[in-house]
Amino acid sequence: MISVTLIGAGNVATHFYKAFRKAEETKVLQWYNRSLKSLQMHKNEVEITSDISTLKKADIYIICVSDDAVAEVSQQLPFKNRLVVHTSGSVNIHDLDKKNHRGVFYPLQTFSKEAEIDFSQVPICIEVLEKSTFPILKELAEIIGSKVHRINGDQRSALHLAAVFVNNFTNQLYRIAHEVTEEQSTDFNILKPLILETARKIETLSPYLAQTGPAKRNDKKTIKKHLSLLNNEMHKKVYELLTKSIQETHGKKL
Amino acid sequence: MISVTLIGAGNVATHFYKAFRKAEETKVLQWYNRSLKSLQMHKNEVEITSDISTLKKADIYIICVSDDAVAEVSQQLPFKNRLVVHTSGSVNIHDLDKKNHRGVFYPLQTFSKEAEIDFSQVPICIEVLEKSTFPILKELAEIIGSKVHRINGDQRSALHLAAVFVNNFTNQLYRIAHEVTEEQSTDFNILKPLILETARKIETLSPYLAQTGPAKRNDKKTIKKHLSLLNNEMHKKVYELLTKSIQETHGKKL
Repeated sequence: MISVTLIGAGNVATHFYKAFRKAEETKVLQWYNRSLKSLQMHKNEVEITSDISTLKKADIYIICVSDDAVAEVSQQLPFKNRLVVHTSGSVNIHDLDKKNHRGVFYPLQTFSKEAEIDFSQVPICIEVLEKSTFPILKELAEIIGSKVHRINGDQRSALHLAAVFVNNFTNQLYRIAHEVTEEQSTDFNILKPLILETARKIETLSPYLAQTGPAKRNDKKTIKKHLSLLNNEMHKKVYELLTKSIQETHGKKL
Repeated sequence: MISVTLIGAGNVATHFYKAFRKAEETKVLQWYNRSLKSLQMHKNEVEITSDISTLKKADIYIICVSDDAVAEVSQQLPFKNRLVVHTSGSVNIHDLDKKNHRGVFYPLQTFSKEAEIDFSQVPICIEVLEKSTFPILKELAEIIGSKVHRINGDQRSALHLAAVFVNNFTNQLYRIAHEVTEEQSTDFNILKPLILETARKIETLSPYLAQTGPAKRNDKKTIKKHLSLLNNEMHKKVYELLTKSIQETHGKKL
């Protein structure tokens, strides 16, 4: 049985709470947040607290607060030589106070507050400073069904950066497509099967091999037509730059 | 029973051939291609021909050739007053020779040669010049399980343009992420669940509401760190421009 104390009350903390609570091999010992308000609804299931001095001895303390608050919260912990991890993609492991054993338990996924999370679809990237702390973190991740990847700090930075490309930036391309279709009173939903298939395709094909379209073919007529259809200057720039990026990748003359 | 003649031997023609052949309510009467070579493997199942003058009377002729060849092929057809459609997202319906009834039967999906296609995941966008030709095209699409959308030329242009954003450009973002992870000897596969979830998320949430991340939050520290991690100048430009694009959409000061 692994005992866990959660620190913070945002999306990540809430999804971990639900997953740990459901699993038989873990127990959420306490759930701390600066303000009790967002924890009240769970007060009959778990010990909630807003007094950091009351934290009991748990196997793992998981800090799920905003990036800027990780260092400070870790300093406020009223104990030492215990295992403390944060869950951020971008905060340095050394930002955690060195009075405790430090680690990172980074779930590489996008979380919505509402939707139930299937942790088998949430890879957890684990970074530790002391080898001996890895097995229990690995066990915790596997208990909730996650796939574990042991990484170092540079790898985590790269993954966090890459995640911005495949999540935030991709989502912005969906947004632009939404605007483009709405301008012609066309239903954005028509594009959804294509959006899903584009994501699915790279399950079996590298993005390099999966590429098609006017940019890769250097089909100047279609590119010109598309640019003439875009009224929004920013969208035009995005079209031009990603066309260039594709052509650079695929070795076409720019 | 709808009789169909296919013209062309590329991915789209091949996938339509398989779907029509499987369906009981359609018959592929003939399959024409300039060269017989790529049709040979089907010669025992269907009448194949490379002589356009031998085309028999079918209910619908479907031209699945490259965009640039559509007009010419339609002119070469040795008959008139029959229903002829092309399958391109970008070729004008008027590029089809007006001696026949003209239409567009545009499957809005990405096709790989190898993978079997499930046409229930392929919306078919139908454009016609004469209202009377719509029902049979709709029926044909529905027979193979596709959802039908009746659109006009401007809407098709918008969809084709939007498809470049959600398919080609999105795939290029996957490619950049692939390069970013490989530079740190990190497994690109770790990102695949996030890629899928990003696509799935907009099934229930608009891309506007689904947006998260440093650009939307205007988290300058993370943005600066990410830019410093990018060695490739083109990737840096893509990061900067899509960050700006997100901030313009979400009304942050640039």
